[in-house]
Amino acid sequence: MPRSEVRVALLGVGTVGSQVARILAVHGNRLSRLIGARLRLIGIACRRPADVSDQWIDKSLLTDDPASLCPQADVVIEVMGGLEPARSLMMSAFENGASVVTANKALLSRDLKSLQQAAYDHHADLYYEAAVAGTIPVVRVLRESLAADQIISISGIVNGTTNYILDQMALKGISFDQALAQAQEQGYAEADPSADIDGYDSAAKAAIMACLAFGQEIKLDDVDVEGIRSVSQADVAAAAARGEVIRLLASISRDKPGSKNGSDCYTPGSSFPLHVSVKPVTLPKDHELAGIHGSYNAVAIKARYAGDLMLTGLGAGGEPTASAVVSDLITVAGNKVSGVVSPPIPLTSLSGSDCSAEISAKNYGQGV
Amino acid sequence: MPRSEVRVALLGVGTVGSQVARILAVHGNRLSRLIGARLRLIGIACRRPADVSDQWIDKSLLTDDPASLCPQADVVIEVMGGLEPARSLMMSAFENGASVVTANKALLSRDLKSLQQAAYDHHADLYYEAAVAGTIPVVRVLRESLAADQIISISGIVNGTTNYILDQMALKGISFDQALAQAQEQGYAEADPSADIDGYDSAAKAAIMACLAFGQEIKLDDVDVEGIRSVSQADVAAAAARGEVIRLLASISRDKPGSKNGSDCYTPGSSFPLHVSVKPVTLPKDHELAGIHGSYNAVAIKARYAGDLMLTGLGAGGEPTASAVVSDLITVAGNKVSGVVSPPIPLTSLSGSDCSAEISAKNYGQGV
Repeated sequence: MPRSEVRVALLGVGTVGSQVARILAVHGNRLSRLIGARLRLIGIACRRPADVSDQWIDKSLLTDDPASLCPQADVVIEVMGGLEPARSLMMSAFENGASVVTANKALLSRDLKSLQQAAYDHHADLYYEAAVAGTIPVVRVLRESLAADQIISISGIVNGTTNYILDQMALKGISFDQALAQAQEQGYAEADPSADIDGYDSAAKAAIMACLAFGQEIKLDDVDVEGIRSVSQADVAAAAARGEVIRLLASISRDKPGSKNGSDCYTPGSSFPLHVSVKPVTLPKDHELAGIHGSYNAVAIKARYAGDLMLTGLGAGGEPTASAVVSDLITVAGNKVSGVVSPPIPLTSLSGSDCSAEISAKNYGQGV
Repeated sequence: MPRSEVRVALLGVGTVGSQVARILAVHGNRLSRLIGARLRLIGIACRRPADVSDQWIDKSLLTDDPASLCPQADVVIEVMGGLEPARSLMMSAFENGASVVTANKALLSRDLKSLQQAAYDHHADLYYEAAVAGTIPVVRVLRESLAADQIISISGIVNGTTNYILDQMALKGISFDQALAQAQEQGYAEADPSADIDGYDSAAKAAIMACLAFGQEIKLDDVDVEGIRSVSQADVAAAAARGEVIRLLASISRDKPGSKNGSDCYTPGSSFPLHVSVKPVTLPKDHELAGIHGSYNAVAIKARYAGDLMLTGLGAGGEPTASAVVSDLITVAGNKVSGVVSPPIPLTSLSGSDCSAEISAKNYGQGV
């Protein structure tokens, strides 16, 4: 019997969750037509239902008990953040056969493999476009568009708050503290900005991208992290005098130790270790990533066949993040209607199982 | 019974087809693991099999009779180009239940709707990432990543040959004819370069993007086209003197006639006609599309919720295009293994069926 509806539970109704609810309220009919079944929001969990005042939210759907929603849902949207209870709720969703859409980079960067395994074991999907680089569709590009290719390296600006601060320091000649205060006033930085400015938010995103791009389990702890707290106005001014700008760069490459340019020394099937780092770096003003201003994000991908790709977009914000969440919802809800799941990303140590083919292909002598 | 193999027929073994065959030869095992069944190349059709010398091609697979391959294949990769026999072969593939992956922008820009309908009628997929903007994954981004969003406008540089010519004219002060000759020497331009320099290649891509982004059937003939043949060195020099560069821009927007900036006057559910054009325009040097050099392509998308996205990558070339073709192959072959098809893009006139929702949403007063 064809499925007539897909039941959706929304966990969290903060900046992102509220906008997810709004998109579902405004575009529910159009989105239901896209998936071929009615998308039905069955409940919205949050800490204090009485405080929710958004007009587009049906108050009868609110509950302070997220665990009660998971067993009834076909898809659980987790936008509450944090490690627990988010992880337990996701696991509960999978155990009930529900798919999960999440923006939770902190959790995924610690536990992607086991969450993915739980989804797989229960014939469910785990999607997380909104966890990495805001609206930039880098998860789908790595997972699908470059599925046939081989990634050589990724570098990017994946935290809007720190980019805004560095950009303002360069444009206005202000100190780090002044720029941070300004970011907080503008709503770009949290009251406790440490996850952003100490580089851990970027590191979580880098770890997830590394998993996707290289099929190797990389966790937050594997990332070499340095934030921008010690970047002074004198540093920024000195860089400017040399025609350079400072950017907080996330980098993933199979560097030869000591190499200045990882991509040059990449050889297919090589055993150079994967190196994932987040560091403030100086870039020449005409570098493609030097031109990323304000709270924008950018991800530059170098692939063996596709060459150089660059994706730029808003790094954060309720509406942009919600757009990514709901696009994932469309995919996993469509899968529910079809009764299929997307293949999980292979996440093992790189086995070199195609190395023999790689080596024989070298004999073709065409830049393999 | 689970499918143990997916039979692939390759029609065309030119610049792109040859590289598709190479990726399948080198990465066949890895790609088969991704889809969960063996990818088996059952035949390669080309005009003169005796002339094919690529070492990675199994000569026993070659035939000059593409029609003989279609009934045996699960997936047909059409990279021969041209309108016929490409169209008849695709139709024959669909009638046999095979999915089609194609890079054929000329055909799709004339006939996307009927080809898509034929695929749908026979429970098959039609994928065409390589038809638009080279390696830039704009088809998948519009079809999936922005599925929940609403596109306001798209503008882009989607022809590498003309961008190379305009860029060389600006950088070297040479004439259009000199730059064209240089593009031909470098292999960027064909012996008959008219499809590129008269704008029709860009127009075909713009028509396909318009269909994807706005769900409205737009054909090549609907595009307002002007090429770069009449752009002189004097024009380029005059633009440079004003701090501007000339780029051949493809634009899709719901412009109010006479408006200078379509996105500003966009209102959801508006009845402003969709305007698709390809024209040489002058852009200030700091415009995001002014910085696209050589044969690179770029597509800038403005979406209602996601905001501004920009995607940049190589516009052409055998390997890059083959990477896009094989990524589509992975998707449609995976669908064959699961027994599903991806939903076709809705292609009707914009019905405004969500307009009532749009209007009531305006009452929320949050920038809807």
